[in-house]
Amino acid sequence: MDIEQFRKAGYQAIDRICDYYYSLEQRPVVSQVQPGYLREALPENAPEKGEDFQFIADDYQKLIVPGMSPWQHPSFFAFFPTAGTFESMLGDLYSSSIPTPGFNVIPASTELEAVVMDWGAKLFGLDSRFLNSSEIGGGVIQTSASDSALVAVVAARARYIRDHPGVKQEDLILYTTTQTHSLGLKAGIVLGLTCRALEVLLDDQFALRGSTLQDALEEDKKRGKHPFIIIATIGTTSSGAVDRLNEIGEVVKTYPSLWIHVDAAWAGVTLACPEFREIAMLDSINKYADSFCTNFHKWGLVNFDASGMWVKDRKHLTNALDITPEFLRSKHGDAGTVIDYRNWHLGLGRRFRSLKLWFVLRSYGVEGFQKYIRSTIQLNDYFVKLVRSSPTFHLVTQPSFALTVFRLVPASSASTDTTALNTLNESFYSRISARQDIWLTQTKINGVFCIRFAVGAARTTKEHIDKAWKLLNEEAEIALADWVVISN
Amino acid sequence: MDIEQFRKAGYQAIDRICDYYYSLEQRPVVSQVQPGYLREALPENAPEKGEDFQFIADDYQKLIVPGMSPWQHPSFFAFFPTAGTFESMLGDLYSSSIPTPGFNVIPASTELEAVVMDWGAKLFGLDSRFLNSSEIGGGVIQTSASDSALVAVVAARARYIRDHPGVKQEDLILYTTTQTHSLGLKAGIVLGLTCRALEVLLDDQFALRGSTLQDALEEDKKRGKHPFIIIATIGTTSSGAVDRLNEIGEVVKTYPSLWIHVDAAWAGVTLACPEFREIAMLDSINKYADSFCTNFHKWGLVNFDASGMWVKDRKHLTNALDITPEFLRSKHGDAGTVIDYRNWHLGLGRRFRSLKLWFVLRSYGVEGFQKYIRSTIQLNDYFVKLVRSSPTFHLVTQPSFALTVFRLVPASSASTDTTALNTLNESFYSRISARQDIWLTQTKINGVFCIRFAVGAARTTKEHIDKAWKLLNEEAEIALADWVVISN
Repeated sequence: MDIEQFRKAGYQAIDRICDYYYSLEQRPVVSQVQPGYLREALPENAPEKGEDFQFIADDYQKLIVPGMSPWQHPSFFAFFPTAGTFESMLGDLYSSSIPTPGFNVIPASTELEAVVMDWGAKLFGLDSRFLNSSEIGGGVIQTSASDSALVAVVAARARYIRDHPGVKQEDLILYTTTQTHSLGLKAGIVLGLTCRALEVLLDDQFALRGSTLQDALEEDKKRGKHPFIIIATIGTTSSGAVDRLNEIGEVVKTYPSLWIHVDAAWAGVTLACPEFREIAMLDSINKYADSFCTNFHKWGLVNFDASGMWVKDRKHLTNALDITPEFLRSKHGDAGTVIDYRNWHLGLGRRFRSLKLWFVLRSYGVEGFQKYIRSTIQLNDYFVKLVRSSPTFHLVTQPSFALTVFRLVPASSASTDTTALNTLNESFYSRISARQDIWLTQTKINGVFCIRFAVGAARTTKEHIDKAWKLLNEEAEIALADWVVISN
Repeated sequence: MDIEQFRKAGYQAIDRICDYYYSLEQRPVVSQVQPGYLREALPENAPEKGEDFQFIADDYQKLIVPGMSPWQHPSFFAFFPTAGTFESMLGDLYSSSIPTPGFNVIPASTELEAVVMDWGAKLFGLDSRFLNSSEIGGGVIQTSASDSALVAVVAARARYIRDHPGVKQEDLILYTTTQTHSLGLKAGIVLGLTCRALEVLLDDQFALRGSTLQDALEEDKKRGKHPFIIIATIGTTSSGAVDRLNEIGEVVKTYPSLWIHVDAAWAGVTLACPEFREIAMLDSINKYADSFCTNFHKWGLVNFDASGMWVKDRKHLTNALDITPEFLRSKHGDAGTVIDYRNWHLGLGRRFRSLKLWFVLRSYGVEGFQKYIRSTIQLNDYFVKLVRSSPTFHLVTQPSFALTVFRLVPASSASTDTTALNTLNESFYSRISARQDIWLTQTKINGVFCIRFAVGAARTTKEHIDKAWKLLNEEAEIALADWVVISN
C-alpha cells in the first residue's frame, strides 16, 4: 500500500467509523454470532498473493464488526466501562503512525508521559510525592491494572527482601480480600507467592477493616510468615466496595515493611471531582499508599490501554526492575536526565500511550472530565432510585459511584432462603443475558447471586436507563411467574 | 468532539500522516531536541477548560513529531527495526474504534487471534502441534518478547514444581547465555529466580553449545539446584548469534524437565522464507522447543505491539495462569468452546491486535512477506560486501540475517590491543551518533566495543546503504586521524 492508497483507505476508515457511531444505538450490544463463526468463515492459511485492501476493509465490516459486542453502546451496563473517545482514537492513530519501542532515546514519548502523568496526579489530587516532577516518586502508564499490581508486588517484594535478607519466598504473603479483583491472586500465582484473601463482611459493605488486617498480621507473624504487601481496593469489581484505607494505614504504621498498593482501577477517576474525594479515600491514599493505580481506559475517557500507576518512591521500582544492557545505554539515560520507563514496568518495549491521554485531557479539560464522571454517577443514582422504589428489586449492597448491585426479592417471599432466591435470580439473569439489546453482568458475593448494573458509556442517557428499567421489570415478571410455578 | 468533528480531525490526521511519510527521508532520523524540551514547553496542569482539537493536533505536529526519532526512516540502522506499515496502522485505527478489554465474550477478537496465529505458525513452518486448531498447543499475541519469555518462565516453573513438589524457589535456575537479551535476566528478577548466563565464545560465533549446557546442568544438579528452563536465542541482539538448538535439544533429552523457550524476537520472521529455515533452526524448533516467540512488530511488518508466542501445550499456560472469578464466567468460556486468552498471559485485559496482523498478512500475502524479508537481507549482504572489501573496517562476527557487527581495525595496527581499538571505535561511534542523518547502535561483546548495522526499515534501498557507507568512511577517516595523533 503506497501513500495515496493509504490516504484513500484512511478516509474510508474514518467514514466507516463515523457510520458505525451513527448506527451504534441500533446495533446489538451483545454480539449475536455463534462461537466458531469466524474460524469457519476464514481460510486456514494466509493468502499466497496479497489481496486488494478494499476486500480486506469490507471483510472487517462484514465479519469482524458483528462479532464485537461494543462496550461503548448506550445500553452497556456490564463489567465496567471501557472508554472510547474520538480524541483518544486519534491519539492512537497518530501514535501508530510513528511506531517505536518507546525507549527513552525517544524524547517526545518519554517526556510526554512524565508530564501528562503529573497532570493526571494533579487532576486526582494526589500528593506531590507522586509527581514525576518530584524526581522521587512518579507516574507511569502500564497496560492494565493487573500489570500495575504485579509491578507493585515485585517492587514490594524487592524492598522487603532487601530489608529482611534471608527470608524465603515461600514465607512471603501477599494480602488481598475475598473481594479483590483477580489481579491479586494472579500476581500471586505469577510470582509463586502465597496470596491470602482476608474476609470481608456484608455489614461492612465488603470493605476490609483495619482489625481484620491486624489479626492476620499477628497470626502470620506468629506462624513465621512474612506479609509484605496489601492490595487495598477503592471500588471492587463485584460491588464497588471501598476498603477502609484509613484503618489499614493506621495498622500498617506498626508494620512499616508492609507495602500498600491501592487498586482503584475503576473508581479512581472519581477523584477528579472534589465531592467524591472523601468517599474515595483521597486523604488516606496520600497518607498511606506506596503505589496507586487507576485505569484511564475504564472510566477515564481514554481508549484501552492506559492504566495509570503512581508511586511515592520510584527507586523501589528501579531497584526491582533495572537491568541495563550495553546496547541500550544512551548519553541522556546514563546522565539520569531522562526517566527510563522500561525500569518501571515488566517488559522492555512500550507503545506511545501518553499521546491519547494528552489529547483527552486537553480536549475535555478538567471541567469536561468532571462533567462526564458526574453525569454517569447521576445516571446511576437515578437507577438506584428506581430500584429503591420497586417492591421486587432490592439492593444487595449500597450503590457505589456508578455501580448498583441488586437482585430480585419478591415481596411475597421475605423468608425465602438464599438457594431459592439464587435460583430465581439465576433464571432472571439468564433471561437478561439472552437479550441482545442490553448487557449486564452477574456476580456472586458471599454466596448471594446478584446482578451488576454499571453506568459509564459516554452515550448513555436517562432514556437508556428508563429503557433498561422497563426491560428488567418485564423479564423479572416472567422469571417470577416461572419461579412461582416451580416453587409450588 | 462529535462525530462530524471526528470526521474532520480524522481526515486531517490521515492527510498529515501522508505528509509525514512523503517528508520522512528529509527528516532527521535521530531527534535533535534537547532532553527536557517538552516539559519546558508544556503547562504544569491539564487545562481547566477543554481546548479546540485543532490546537491540540497542531501541537502534536509542532511539539511531538520533532521529538520522535523515527524507526521507519530509511537511514535507520539502529537496534532492530520496528515495523510500520499502513495496513497495520489501519488495523490499529479500526481496533481503537471499538475498544474493549478483549475478554473471550467478544467472539471476533478472540477467534481472529486464534486464526491468524495459525496463519503465522504455518507461514513460519512451525509444527502442527503449535497450532490453535490442534486444540492442544496454540499461539497468542503478547505485548513484547519480554512478556513472552516471562510467561514461558512462569509456565515452566509451574510445570517443574508440579513434577518436583517441595522444590524451593531459591533452588530454581533459569538458563540464558551471556548474549541473551535482557529479557532473560529481567524474567529472573521479576520472578525472584536465579538466572545463570552460560558462557559463549567468539569461536562459536557466540552461540550456545550443547556441551556448555551439559556441563552447567551436571554442575547445578550436583549443587542441589534445579534448572527448569533454558532461553535459547535465534538471533541475539548484539550480534545475531544463533544458539545451537540441535545440540541443546539433544542434551535436554536426558533432562526432560528443562523447558526450552526459543526467543527469536527479531530473526524468527525469516522462517517465512524456506531458504533461511536451516540457519534459523526450524527443524530443531519444531523438535525441541516448548515455546517459541517472534515479534511481528520488529521485522514482521506489523506495528508495535504484536509479539507472537506459540506453545506446544497450552495447558502449561493455563495451569500456571488460570484463575476464573465469577464475574467473568461466560456460557461459551465455561463450555470450553472459546479460547480464554487471559489465561495465556499476565494481565486480564488485552487489545485487539490480531486485526492488524490479519490486515498485513492478507495485504502482503505470503509472497509479499517473503519478498520484504529477502530484500532487507540482500541489502545487508550488500553492506557486508562493502565491509569485507574495506581495508579499515572489519566484521567482528559473521553477518547474521540482516545484521552486521563491525568495527574499525586500521591496517597499520594489526597488533593494537583491545583497549586501544575500543578507544578508537568509541570515538568513531561517538562521531556517528552525533549525526542526525543516520542511526546505528553500539554494543560490546566479550569486551570488544563494536558497532551494529541492522537493516529492516521498509523504505531502505541500496542508495541508503551507499550513503551510509560513504558517511561511515568519512567519519572513520576523521576518527582514525585523531586516534593516530593521540596514539603517537
